[in-house]
Amino acid sequence: MSWLVTGGAGYIGAHVVRVMRDGGESVVVYDDLSTGRADRVPDGVPLVVGSVLDRDLLERVIRDHGVTGVVHIAAKKQVGESVERPLHYYRENVTGLQTLLEAMSATGVGAIVFSSSAAVYGMPDVDLVTEDTACAPMSPYGETKLIGEWLIKAAVTAYGMRGASLRYFNVAGAASPELSDTGVFNLVPMVFERLEAGEAPRIFGDDYTTPDGTCVRDYIHVQDIASAHLAAARRLEDAPRGTALTLNIGRGEGSSVREMVDRILKVTGNEGVTPEVTDRRAGDPARVVAAADRIRGELGWSARHGLDEMIESAWQGWRHHRR
Amino acid sequence: MSWLVTGGAGYIGAHVVRVMRDGGESVVVYDDLSTGRADRVPDGVPLVVGSVLDRDLLERVIRDHGVTGVVHIAAKKQVGESVERPLHYYRENVTGLQTLLEAMSATGVGAIVFSSSAAVYGMPDVDLVTEDTACAPMSPYGETKLIGEWLIKAAVTAYGMRGASLRYFNVAGAASPELSDTGVFNLVPMVFERLEAGEAPRIFGDDYTTPDGTCVRDYIHVQDIASAHLAAARRLEDAPRGTALTLNIGRGEGSSVREMVDRILKVTGNEGVTPEVTDRRAGDPARVVAAADRIRGELGWSARHGLDEMIESAWQGWRHHRR
Repeated sequence: MSWLVTGGAGYIGAHVVRVMRDGGESVVVYDDLSTGRADRVPDGVPLVVGSVLDRDLLERVIRDHGVTGVVHIAAKKQVGESVERPLHYYRENVTGLQTLLEAMSATGVGAIVFSSSAAVYGMPDVDLVTEDTACAPMSPYGETKLIGEWLIKAAVTAYGMRGASLRYFNVAGAASPELSDTGVFNLVPMVFERLEAGEAPRIFGDDYTTPDGTCVRDYIHVQDIASAHLAAARRLEDAPRGTALTLNIGRGEGSSVREMVDRILKVTGNEGVTPEVTDRRAGDPARVVAAADRIRGELGWSARHGLDEMIESAWQGWRHHRR
Repeated sequence: MSWLVTGGAGYIGAHVVRVMRDGGESVVVYDDLSTGRADRVPDGVPLVVGSVLDRDLLERVIRDHGVTGVVHIAAKKQVGESVERPLHYYRENVTGLQTLLEAMSATGVGAIVFSSSAAVYGMPDVDLVTEDTACAPMSPYGETKLIGEWLIKAAVTAYGMRGASLRYFNVAGAASPELSDTGVFNLVPMVFERLEAGEAPRIFGDDYTTPDGTCVRDYIHVQDIASAHLAAARRLEDAPRGTALTLNIGRGEGSSVREMVDRILKVTGNEGVTPEVTDRRAGDPARVVAAADRIRGELGWSARHGLDEMIESAWQGWRHHRR
């Protein structure tokens, strides 16, 4: 098969492109470069610069490159910005996916792997979140991800496609410094930024009902995220029409914010720094940890990389980009 | 205020237009006439023929007519068709509303009344469905209605709008024969159609966990639906920015399919006919009846019309259109 990877010039997309290419898949990148960077696309992989809202261009690229499946990673992904600019998020994430599915349907492309998110669960009140836990997204960003899953399921049913929605938990790390995330929207780079400014890292609330009182999350290395995409793509290659998978991608292990901050301080040589505990942020659930059994059963996939590897590689990437 | 009524040439829209006009509101109809009919728009009310996907036209109409609020009724509404053509439904219902909200935001229009549906609840397992009952739509149609509510809430928060989402239960009846529904997608016209063909009306399953074993629904007269829109529009006129209401529009009374069929047989002079009981249809919940307290408290609205009035007026409309 020949895979179109939308958002393939982004942080996660660039990792997916490399892992799929290294796994022997044929790959074409489609990215509007609004946040992606052309230098993340490896030599030998075609890059088409375009919007997922441009149906004509999507169809042309599909035909020109003989595309037979799509890995749809292109999306706006900042929760806070989605509250301020919801129509922009719906346009890019929802109408964008609709347009892509229309182009796929028109050209007979039948397989799609979709980047969903643990944000679809909202504030889950369970120890381990399974794929059957009720979805109740708390932001326009999370809504657009759940809507994307609905769209794919509906298209699979109506048009006989095959689809896999992958619910990412908390992504961190990088395969190499130049591929690392340059945004500061997650815990790990937020701590780096505070340290660089000579300030104590912040912990938003230590009165949650968790062992040490701070929020618990399931952190996963971006290389593991990428290998899950390859596994899902290969599964869809052989799957019958009408197959629709929804899969958590997490390690199935919870780590508290305090534990993560302590690890980051150690890795970056800042053991002496004491984190500052502030008020809770609105909308932070106490605990979001994946049940990772379904993906193991369905794809034979499980995570291989640990916390220190995520933090060390992210720190190398941070220094690379700030140098 | 001056209200733009999208879908105002449709069955429900035409009733809303009349009730709002008779209530002294200034009204402009916007309809693509894909299922609406120009002859449903009363004399003296401007009709603009256009798509809710045409942002430029929407903005021009808003400016030309001094529109200050929108009643958004235009939508695709057939559950079965939505399963077969999901991308069409998402395009019209979701991207259509996004486009409308973009046009409103660009022109400073801050009030919107939105046609939602009890379909957002899916298969509720409660005696009376309140607005806080968990939403779990079962079809692309129901999904697009829940997404519409999310869009409106997000726009209210981000842009300081005021919004009301009205969850219609089972609409029936007509204010006059020529305004009646011409589609055959609900129980009442489906029974009419069977009778006209000389066939026994069908009851899909009588082994549900309900008093007589047939499904129970909350039927409401389209005139009551229309007056709820007027009440909601007036409420939004005075509401502070950031107001977002979600309201059931039902009578709060359940009627079984068997009871409805018996009433229809009586009203149409077919007492001798015995309904035919067949297998259940997939996806029919046993019971969906509104808790109608919130709308009474918020808008001082409650339904005034009963079952026989719905059936008699629908029957007159049926004969009018078939003559």
